[in-house]
Amino acid sequence: MTTEKISWSPSTQLAPVPAVLLGCGKSKGYDANLITVAWCGIINSEPPMLSVSIRKERYSHTIISDTGEFSCNVPLAEHAREVDYCGVVSGRKINKFKTCNFTALEGEKIKAPTIAECPLTLECKVAKIIELGTHDLFLADIVNVRVSKDFIDGNGHFNFDKKGLLAYCHGAYYNLGEKIGTFGFSVKK
Amino acid sequence: MTTEKISWSPSTQLAPVPAVLLGCGKSKGYDANLITVAWCGIINSEPPMLSVSIRKERYSHTIISDTGEFSCNVPLAEHAREVDYCGVVSGRKINKFKTCNFTALEGEKIKAPTIAECPLTLECKVAKIIELGTHDLFLADIVNVRVSKDFIDGNGHFNFDKKGLLAYCHGAYYNLGEKIGTFGFSVKK
Repeated sequence: MTTEKISWSPSTQLAPVPAVLLGCGKSKGYDANLITVAWCGIINSEPPMLSVSIRKERYSHTIISDTGEFSCNVPLAEHAREVDYCGVVSGRKINKFKTCNFTALEGEKIKAPTIAECPLTLECKVAKIIELGTHDLFLADIVNVRVSKDFIDGNGHFNFDKKGLLAYCHGAYYNLGEKIGTFGFSVKK
Repeated sequence: MTTEKISWSPSTQLAPVPAVLLGCGKSKGYDANLITVAWCGIINSEPPMLSVSIRKERYSHTIISDTGEFSCNVPLAEHAREVDYCGVVSGRKINKFKTCNFTALEGEKIKAPTIAECPLTLECKVAKIIELGTHDLFLADIVNVRVSKDFIDGNGHFNFDKKGLLAYCHGAYYNLGEKIGTFGFSVKK
């Protein structure tokens, strides 16, 4: 293996990134809708916050801007087809919950719908919207976390090892593989 | 499998997220330094931008705030120990490039060092810093991308399948597993 490198023009090559399903609507006259975003990340630990970037022309951009709420649903690898589908079709004409066979659960702290079949849901309220270019960046407070009982282990921790989560890398969906170590393992004796 | 859920207090449970090594320094009197961040994501496609969140008390926060530059180096799964190490020790007293046996390459469009051993590097210039709480959010322009020749396939695309990338989930490091599908596969005939 060499370490020789070449330059590419600037692009969004970070990987892996999450591919999550945002649930929105169910208030202000909007039906429940879903959109997949890969431009999503944690931005603050305390208070817990995440950001999502959404193209201005997407229907969910309108809904989330107007309602100020969304759910961030973390899918399993087995949901890859639905995740892909919700990223490429528009909710203006299609009910994605129905097409994907997802069950819409009411959020606890938000009116936006959450997905029953996803093991983990972060309920979010928009704190700020920043225009960047193709996308607007939504900074949001995580106001509640919902976890499927099936994914909590005997110690009360979230454990998804029996069913892998989904990752997105350079235009493809991947299953997570083997666990290599836990935070701090490099300095443990 | 049930869909029964319980609520947890708000926390940063998004997963998987990238665990990347930021290179900084090599200008304004700072030595080359490294810090691992998992609170990192793409925020805009055109112009290409990413964000990283860094705790105010970290040495790299000082360096990046002062120099306005950093490299975002995407590690392989085999770098998990170094990635972990650069997240838990401070560069104020330790030369992490040396300890990790990483080769510092000068950036092309930035003065901040890049890591030769990482297959992919995004060279970044800070556009804006937003204070959020424990962390400050750095919005940055991706001004150049460097790719190891070893990871470019015959079609000129980035291909890391022969050596997996690293993902971070709920306090543990994972290798990426099998490819499930490519973007748009759900609607292809």
